[in-house]
Amino acid sequence: MREIVSVALGDRPAELAVCNVSLFDPFTGEWIATSFAVHRGIVAGLGEYEASHTIDLHGARVVPGLIDSHVHIESSLLCPQEFGRLVLPHGTTTVVADPHEIANVAGTAGLDWMLAQRRQTPLDIFYMAPSCVPATPLDLGGAVLTADDLARYVGTDGILGLAEMMNVPGVLSGDPGITKKLSLFSLIDGHAPLLSGKELNAYICAGIQSDHECTVAEEACEKLRKGMYLMVREGSTEKNIETLASVVDWRSAPRCSLATDDRHLDILAESGHIDDCIRKAVSAGIDLESALRMATLSAADRFALSDRGAVAPGRIADFCVLAPGDSFLVERTFKRGVEISALPYCPPEPITVPVACAPLKQPDLRIDGSGAARVIGLVEGQIITAALEIDVDGARIPDFERDILKCVVCDRYRASGSGVALVHGFGLQKGAIAQSISHDAHNIVCVGTSDTDIIAAVSSVAGCGGGIAAVCGEQSVLLPLNCGGLMSSEPCEEVTRRFSEMKKFASDFGGIDDPLMYLSFLALTVIPHLRVTERGLFDVSLFQDVPLFLS
Amino acid sequence: MREIVSVALGDRPAELAVCNVSLFDPFTGEWIATSFAVHRGIVAGLGEYEASHTIDLHGARVVPGLIDSHVHIESSLLCPQEFGRLVLPHGTTTVVADPHEIANVAGTAGLDWMLAQRRQTPLDIFYMAPSCVPATPLDLGGAVLTADDLARYVGTDGILGLAEMMNVPGVLSGDPGITKKLSLFSLIDGHAPLLSGKELNAYICAGIQSDHECTVAEEACEKLRKGMYLMVREGSTEKNIETLASVVDWRSAPRCSLATDDRHLDILAESGHIDDCIRKAVSAGIDLESALRMATLSAADRFALSDRGAVAPGRIADFCVLAPGDSFLVERTFKRGVEISALPYCPPEPITVPVACAPLKQPDLRIDGSGAARVIGLVEGQIITAALEIDVDGARIPDFERDILKCVVCDRYRASGSGVALVHGFGLQKGAIAQSISHDAHNIVCVGTSDTDIIAAVSSVAGCGGGIAAVCGEQSVLLPLNCGGLMSSEPCEEVTRRFSEMKKFASDFGGIDDPLMYLSFLALTVIPHLRVTERGLFDVSLFQDVPLFLS
Repeated sequence: MREIVSVALGDRPAELAVCNVSLFDPFTGEWIATSFAVHRGIVAGLGEYEASHTIDLHGARVVPGLIDSHVHIESSLLCPQEFGRLVLPHGTTTVVADPHEIANVAGTAGLDWMLAQRRQTPLDIFYMAPSCVPATPLDLGGAVLTADDLARYVGTDGILGLAEMMNVPGVLSGDPGITKKLSLFSLIDGHAPLLSGKELNAYICAGIQSDHECTVAEEACEKLRKGMYLMVREGSTEKNIETLASVVDWRSAPRCSLATDDRHLDILAESGHIDDCIRKAVSAGIDLESALRMATLSAADRFALSDRGAVAPGRIADFCVLAPGDSFLVERTFKRGVEISALPYCPPEPITVPVACAPLKQPDLRIDGSGAARVIGLVEGQIITAALEIDVDGARIPDFERDILKCVVCDRYRASGSGVALVHGFGLQKGAIAQSISHDAHNIVCVGTSDTDIIAAVSSVAGCGGGIAAVCGEQSVLLPLNCGGLMSSEPCEEVTRRFSEMKKFASDFGGIDDPLMYLSFLALTVIPHLRVTERGLFDVSLFQDVPLFLS
Repeated sequence: MREIVSVALGDRPAELAVCNVSLFDPFTGEWIATSFAVHRGIVAGLGEYEASHTIDLHGARVVPGLIDSHVHIESSLLCPQEFGRLVLPHGTTTVVADPHEIANVAGTAGLDWMLAQRRQTPLDIFYMAPSCVPATPLDLGGAVLTADDLARYVGTDGILGLAEMMNVPGVLSGDPGITKKLSLFSLIDGHAPLLSGKELNAYICAGIQSDHECTVAEEACEKLRKGMYLMVREGSTEKNIETLASVVDWRSAPRCSLATDDRHLDILAESGHIDDCIRKAVSAGIDLESALRMATLSAADRFALSDRGAVAPGRIADFCVLAPGDSFLVERTFKRGVEISALPYCPPEPITVPVACAPLKQPDLRIDGSGAARVIGLVEGQIITAALEIDVDGARIPDFERDILKCVVCDRYRASGSGVALVHGFGLQKGAIAQSISHDAHNIVCVGTSDTDIIAAVSSVAGCGGGIAAVCGEQSVLLPLNCGGLMSSEPCEEVTRRFSEMKKFASDFGGIDDPLMYLSFLALTVIPHLRVTERGLFDVSLFQDVPLFLS
């Protein structure tokens, strides 16, 4: 402490002086014409300072480092350090992540790996301990995290609290395991889409403090008024900024932050991260200063990170220099006072999770019988599915005319076998796509136009320890995700390139945009109505397995 | 937790339903037409609820319980529980207090007594551990609190952090004792009047987070911009709301709170407490909602008191019902869901600090010599004094014509004797007043027009274990302050009555308004220029004792 105080006093030179900036001050919402000094990664003071190194920014706008208040790093397909390498140039200097996906695959070993990985990037990654692994007893993946498992992480460096509590019924009914988990942590994030009225009151009384699932302005208003922190989300598919913009002003901005939740690497690379959210917020009518408040101090405050969120004395020197002009474009990012430019790729140690998948064979995919059948119906732009009833002949699938394809889920943890179902809506004209990203259990899920391609695609994914495969006859593209079948340890540029190649190849199969996204939710047994699991067809409303044919 | 969740769900009746209110919501700044339920002192939920007891408020305005973010309870002359009895009806439900005065008198025994006292009132009293006891090595009172002494209080229930760090030079020079004190606590309040620029940067880098000493708008702006929490103070004598009002808007309100610092019991009784500050804030041009934000959620947030600051699910049910009309008048106060009305007086156990005062005798007051003398000059409305030089004849004091009186300080801790000096500005025409409230050492200080009255007044104060005495010949009024000579354990109504009687009696002596206030700062060796101590005259600029006569 002594050293920074001496530097602040001007008694000894700072390491860095940043001069002539227009600095965004989130405490007052103003842009201040000033300079500032940085020493050992900390802001020593605002004003003119002598320094070993001086950068004159000639009046450029400088904003505090941006914060993502809720993100699943796994959704980027990148391991944490490559995620850092991708988002740092976009101005993100801190993220609060929920390692829920890898926890479903690898349990505490997954959490420990994520904790080790956070030390391999200049990006500050904090974690919330996953609260709901598995999501339901029926959505069992590679691990169960009990309250006792989570208790190990209380006070662990890098763990801030309990991640999104999705088990609303468990909270409201006082489930002992949930209650114990809630009692372990003081910071608790929520996940309560459309919860309102008395149930919302009860959910908050149970200790849950935030929500990132608001999709309606009235919902967001109610949650704010009842004291929840509102994380306004803009992910790859879940885009809420435009709808919620009317809720944010300077009165509510201290209680709001920005979050991406799930954002694929290609979107991160092309559109950006929290910088993109800020641009979208401004387009949606939120004033820039309120958006910046959300992305900096408000997010820091929500997580009691009093060492950041502003360029101010004693705080970590995380800041971004904006490009000239009115638009919000991050030109340079400084993390702890050091400019992030062309971070080198350092191969991470992947976390290997053995894939124990019974080899898929033609008979596993056979559908015996014909008549009225239950068919999973995709719903455009949604992760819910429709429960369709269509007359089919099991021997005549694929039915291209009526867009009915086979989908299959293979247990990748216990080799217990596979389940097959029918799906309408993918519109594939050829080939098959398979992946080990399949919320929340992350078994291998596949949709395809021929048994051969399905078997080949599943086999490719299983064979490389998890990943994404698109197969069409002799041709195939494989993106191995060598970290638990969810993330790649390859360089972000390489993964982005291969992921784009994969998408391009699969787009030749015809059908809907972004089939991978729909595929990743096909086995999620908590969202209505019909799903497919390793046991076969599952009716979410009945919450039980159901036969494919109605009679 | 289970019970409040059930009540929130509506599965079992609440203890109390408060219906038809216009509720101030500090999260959004809105007034919401709603009802709410309270159970076991906690807000179960907003909305309509069944309850054992229902109060229909017919649309009345309800605001969260008010919070004083920095107060010295001792300045009220009341012990904590009587302070609570006085301020609760004004809507105050939480105070963050610095027991600095009693600590100067009684050290850790004083802190322990204050901690015990907080359990005797429904008012939530939190303490910050006094950082500067004594204020300087030369202002030695009854105790020294070292970092080791304070370490005992880390984690103690009711202790939130370190109180106002007044020793700015000690902070900036890295004094080891100060540095150790700063390292003990994570919440640290500041006290840095007019500190700015690099020195302010350094003070903040040392870990100090707030300030309540701003007297100029520019000063407040700079402190806010640099990340300090701004406590806008309105005490008995230090009144800053009007000057600082321009700094507060909805952008800065989350970083600002209201504080009274030092407020006498008569002002509390007549004008009010934080309710009075809110009225003054509105008069000064701050919008009511920003003022309310400051007095509720912002203050709670500054001290990480996430269980209060709003009437919202899961939070403590502290709230006030306002009188009809536009003005801000608290009509009813509810603490933890229970209406505070006519709290009974329960005699507190006083803290007795023996007064070890050498009996004051006529020779002690003799001033031998004549010629040019150093005379303490009062400055109207200020606690600084002027260093006057006046030709005097020691045998001819009092000099009513030129308003020169004797003042004396008697060591009340070690019976080391007394010091006498001359003072200009009190204007007393007769009598003497003495008190054991004398910042920060709290020896007995007296000013008077005759040696006989001075001796009688000091003797009265010493004889009753500390207090305030006004003596004029045969007539006298004594207000014993049986708790360390600073506070009374009598009922607040009785103390108010006797204090007013005392002031009225002393006002007959002629002279300035509020002589007690000026008297209480006459021995404060940290404020320029001339002071009187138990050793005699003290020159603050030279920081040493000086003789009364110049030659």
